[in-house]
Formats: sequence, C-alpha cells, structure tokens
Amino acid sequence: MITLSSDFGWPYPAAIRGVLASRSSARLIDITHAFPRGDVRTAAFWLREILPWFPPAVHLVVVDPGVGTDRDVLAIEADDHVLVGPDNGVLVPVASALDPEYAVFALDQVSARSHTFHGRDVFAPLAARIHEADEWSLTALSGIFPVETFETVQFPKPNINETEAVGEVLVIDQFGNAITNIPGSFLSTEWDRTISVNGAAAPVAQTYADVDPKQRLLTVGSHENVEMAVHGGRGDEAFGVTRGSPVHLQKHVD
Amino acid sequence: MITLSSDFGWPYPAAIRGVLASRSSARLIDITHAFPRGDVRTAAFWLREILPWFPPAVHLVVVDPGVGTDRDVLAIEADDHVLVGPDNGVLVPVASALDPEYAVFALDQVSARSHTFHGRDVFAPLAARIHEADEWSLTALSGIFPVETFETVQFPKPNINETEAVGEVLVIDQFGNAITNIPGSFLSTEWDRTISVNGAAAPVAQTYADVDPKQRLLTVGSHENVEMAVHGGRGDEAFGVTRGSPVHLQKHVD
Amino acid sequence: MITLSSDFGWPYPAAIRGVLASRSSARLIDITHAFPRGDVRTAAFWLREILPWFPPAVHLVVVDPGVGTDRDVLAIEADDHVLVGPDNGVLVPVASALDPEYAVFALDQVSARSHTFHGRDVFAPLAARIHEADEWSLTALSGIFPVETFETVQFPKPNINETEAVGEVLVIDQFGNAITNIPGSFLSTEWDRTISVNGAAAPVAQTYADVDPKQRLLTVGSHENVEMAVHGGRGDEAFGVTRGSPVHLQKHVD
Repeated sequence: MITLSSDFGWPYPAAIRGVLASRSSARLIDITHAFPRGDVRTAAFWLREILPWFPPAVHLVVVDPGVGTDRDVLAIEADDHVLVGPDNGVLVPVASALDPEYAVFALDQVSARSHTFHGRDVFAPLAARIHEADEWSLTALSGIFPVETFETVQFPKPNINETEAVGEVLVIDQFGNAITNIPGSFLSTEWDRTISVNGAAAPVAQTYADVDPKQRLLTVGSHENVEMAVHGGRGDEAFGVTRGSPVHLQKHVD
Repeated sequence: MITLSSDFGWPYPAAIRGVLASRSSARLIDITHAFPRGDVRTAAFWLREILPWFPPAVHLVVVDPGVGTDRDVLAIEADDHVLVGPDNGVLVPVASALDPEYAVFALDQVSARSHTFHGRDVFAPLAARIHEADEWSLTALSGIFPVETFETVQFPKPNINETEAVGEVLVIDQFGNAITNIPGSFLSTEWDRTISVNGAAAPVAQTYADVDPKQRLLTVGSHENVEMAVHGGRGDEAFGVTRGSPVHLQKHVD
Repeated sequence: MITLSSDFGWPYPAAIRGVLASRSSARLIDITHAFPRGDVRTAAFWLREILPWFPPAVHLVVVDPGVGTDRDVLAIEADDHVLVGPDNGVLVPVASALDPEYAVFALDQVSARSHTFHGRDVFAPLAARIHEADEWSLTALSGIFPVETFETVQFPKPNINETEAVGEVLVIDQFGNAITNIPGSFLSTEWDRTISVNGAAAPVAQTYADVDPKQRLLTVGSHENVEMAVHGGRGDEAFGVTRGSPVHLQKHVD
C-alpha cells in the first residue's frame, strides 16, 4: 500500500498516481491533496493524526514549498511504515508518533534545479522503488544513505497549571474549528461550566449538540486537544483566531 | 467492497480509510465527502440515486449532525447490500429503493458522550466487522440487534393533475440545478413548449443544448424528476429557489 | 485498469464508479472530476500531460458540453491504451501523444435525446465492455465501427525566432499559473535575466524559489512550456491574462 498526500489540488496528483501504478504493484490510497499550499505545519499536524490509523504502508508526502532549492529528499523508517517526502520537517511529527526510534535516510544526487516535477519525477519513483524492495528495507536500496541532521517541525508546548492554560492555535480545520495545543484533560473538571477564553466567557461542552445552534463552545476533538468551535458555524471567526493565535484559558474558580 | 460517504471534506475521511484498510480486506470506493455539512435530506437523496448502481457492498455513511447525542448506530440489510450509519433517516430512502423488505439493526452500547470520532471509532469498525463476517450476516454478529423503530427521511409527494403540479425543490446540485419532487412524466406532453413556473414562463427542453446559452429551462434529469436549470449557469439563482422552495408548474392549455 | 476523468465535481462520478465496478473487474483510478465545466480545451491539455504516465489502461473521459446533441461517442486505440469519450476533440491530443497512429471508432446508435445520464448510461458501460473484452480489442466488439472523421482540439503553434516569441495562454492551473504554448527552450539562454512579457519586464527563473515571495517570474513547468507565475501567488492575476490571452516575449538583446 502507498498513501498519497499533497497540497497539489488537481490535476497534478493524477500524474503521481500514474507513476506509482506504472512502477509498483501497490494499492493506492489518497489521504488528501487539499493541504493548504506550502503549509508544512498544518500538513505535519494532520499526518500525525491520520497516518497511524493505517496498516503498514509507504506514505508519500509532497508538501514542498522548497522545491527548486537544494533541500534533501528523505525516506524515514518508522515502525513498519516508510515515509517519503521533502526535508522540511513535514514527516517528523508522524515518524515520531509511529516510532520514537525512527531512522532517516536521504536520497543521493537529486538534481534540484530543473523544470522537473519533483512529486512525479523524484518522490513517486522513490516511493515505488521502496514499495517494490524486499521488506521495504532502506538500507538495501542504492543511492540512499542514513542522515543525522534534518529539519523538524515542532509544535509548541502550552503552559498549564490547575486554573490556567496558555497555548496557541495549531491548525484551523476545513470547518473553522480552531484546534489548540492545549490537552483536552484541562477541561475535564469543567464540563457544562463556563470558562474564560482570551478574556471572554465560553461554555465547555462535551459535544456540539450540548449548545444551541450558532453558539460558541470549547470542546475536545478526536485529536484530544482543546478546540474552539461553533455549533454549525466557524469557531475561528467566532473566536477571532487564526493559525498561530495565542489562546489563554482561565477557569472561573470560586 | 466498502463504499464511503460523508460530509467531512478533508482530512477526516482519510482516518476512516485507514481504519477500514487496517481491519478489513475490502476494496474501498469513495462516493463523496462533499455532502453539505449536516444536511441529512440531501445526502439521503443522493445516496438513493447513486448506491443502487453499485454491486453488493457495505456502504458506510457518516452524515451525522446528531453526533454526541444518544442517537443509535444502525446497520441495514437491503437486498445484497448493507448500509451502516447514524439513526437519522439518511439510510432509509436508499434501503427502501434497494429492497422494500429491508431489515434494520442497531449497535448495542455506544458511548455517545465522549470525544471519540464516531466515523472513525464506531462506524468504520462496524463496517469492517460486517465486511469480514460470513456472508455479511447481521444476525450472526455480536452486539447488534434488530430494531423496529428508527428515524426516516421522507421526501414530500407532489400534487399533480393533468395541467398543474405543485411540489418543492428537493436538492440543489453542485452546478445549481434545482431538482424537484415532480416526476419528469409531467413534462412529456410539453417538449419545446413553454409552461409557467411559479408564475413566470420557461421553456421545456429535453436537453440543455435545446436552449441558448444562459437561458433558463425546465428539463428532466437522470433522477427522472423535473429540474430547473440554466444552460451553462445556475438554475437555483435564475429561478430564485433554494432547497425546500415551493414549485408550481402550470401548463398553458388553450 | 480504468481511469476516470470528468467535469462533474460530485456526486455524479460515484454513479459512474458504481457502473464500472458492477460491469468490470477493473481497478479504478480517478484522474480528476474538477475539470472546468464544459472546457474541452483545458481537459484536452491536462489529459495529454497526465495519461501517458499511466500503464496501459482504458481511460474514460466525460467532458461533454454537447451532451444531448447528436455528437458521436468515441473509443480510440492508442498504443496499449484505449480512450473513451465524446466526439468533441477532448481525446485527440492525448491519443496523438500516446501513438501518432491512433485508430478512432464510434459507437453505433446512441439515443442522444433522452434524460439518460450519458456518463453513467453510455460511456461507462462502453468502457467496462472494452475492459472486459479480449485484449481490449475494438475491432472485435459489436456495435462499434471505425470512423475517419471526428472533432479535434488543436493547440495553436507559437511564432518564435531567436529573440522573440508570440504565443498564447493555453490553460490556467488551479494555482493561477498561466501555461503558454511557448516551449521552455526559448528561455534557455535567459536564466536569471529579465525579459519583456507583453511589454513589461519580468525575471526568468528556473524555480519559484529564485525570486522573492509575491514576485512575478517566467519559468518552465513540468509540461516543458513557458509559464507565467508568482512565487506564492497567482500568475494569471499578476500578468493580467486568462485562457487564450496573447503572450509576447521579447529578449533584451544588447
């Protein structure tokens, strides 16, 4: 199995599917091609949330704002999975979630400066070659070698005590839910109460259905982080936040 | 084969694909993940139009505005198909189209109030379990039992006589075609004539190509209902209608 | 393998997938369903760029603004591929790229004037029938016959000398890159220099990363044509062009 993720929209992913179907026997499954263009952090977040649900696979990721620079092309062994993508950090959070002992390899001699389409001409052939290799072993492949240094994406850690949490918005999902870096456990004493979010009160609810339509709420999403949402609306707009906005939660202790 | 339908957009459907690929050997085919968010009626309409074209399959449907409430999780046997989804009526029109003798089962003991992602954590595992079961038999599965009462979506019936039809807009498709509940047969005497639609005249044409570009027309779509359309434009805007709008057709008899 | 391409968006492609899955054993791969509605030239361009990357396949293409007219339904043998689609020229550029000796067949007796959904009811059954036929042989199929005349899409040829190129914008991609009909080789002497584009200066760069964010550039895309782009923005807007706009490039010779 090879999964495909990119920020290409259409029609470019189809050429990648063609190369993979030509060069491998792999079953192909799309993750998404709708990642925000060039947004390495958002892609890194979602890949970490999603890829661990898959059986062992080669995961091809092309979110590559540095295409045309001399950034490396990486393949990472993590548990029974292999991740293939650019050296910009996008692969590291999911690698780390799959296997803290992940091993990073780089492709030798990529001609970066040319009008090749790296997704189609460099990344896809590498993913296909790994998929066809015995046991997906990277050490057995030619033209690829272990590296010690590579880019990482790190999500900021929140500051939390019993009554207060200071963090930030990690990503906005397609429906406007603002997903923070504050763990959902912060809310576990506050169900059906009200707390302060950046200075204004908002109810804490286990599900959207617990508040009236169009009402704001703080809840915990499937990613197990605190999420700023609106029942049937956009949380980012209602709370006035965007990716990276600071988030200050304060419990009303009395 | 398992088909997937939802209103999730991206990237959430990918986690569902991962669970299905981990827990079953099923071929996976996407129906769409672009159903209007929480719009059970529109999803029910399209599923009834589309799923009967498939060979026997387990059809997983997650359009679930009641997630987080105690609505049931259903599996429905209909002919050689099984439909899996929430108890909000979305599955019933297609079940009924596949097999008037459809049989409804509910999953026991779903913990509704939690920050689980029901599509990924409840519905997908159930669909995979059914797919892997002998002959997809629901009676043989543990934790699932027949139910007699469940929600339904019913599309309103139009009032029709020889010269007049009173109905409503069932759905607007992505291109702005307003699909009504009035059967196409009402127009069978009117090809290339003009009739009155909510008080204003419009031509009746067998195909878009029969009217000039940007012109309004009444026609019959592949769903065999009367459709309000514009050749190369949006029928909903040109006719001033939205989902649920009343539609009054009157033939010019003379 | 059957590939699917259309301008249908959602949910109509799912009905086509259902028919193909019911009537053939083919693996199904989507190219895209996001072609601009009714835009035969843009679809023809992308199919020529993308389909040759696939292994031998039956390629089903439904971009069919003439549905409802008496346009033919074609199947084209090109190398080891078969292309199925309407007779409006959309298949010809890719047929020609795959095999200059391509052979064109038409389906007999299609009832064009009816409220059938040709993608689902005519094209998909034909693609499935071809896929299931021995060696995908068109001559062996009933109800299909060779034709000598058919529509073509021809992309205009540019006028080029050593210092000047006059051409046009063939397509705008989803990100606003304006892809011209001028071959990339015209720029091979100009890397990192400035040339005149429709009278205004613009830098020539091998990759987007060679200019500052939000800056215009001329570059060569994976299609090997000159492309008018903006680093992290829309080239069509920055250069004031749309599909079909004239493009005049002039080198600053001194």
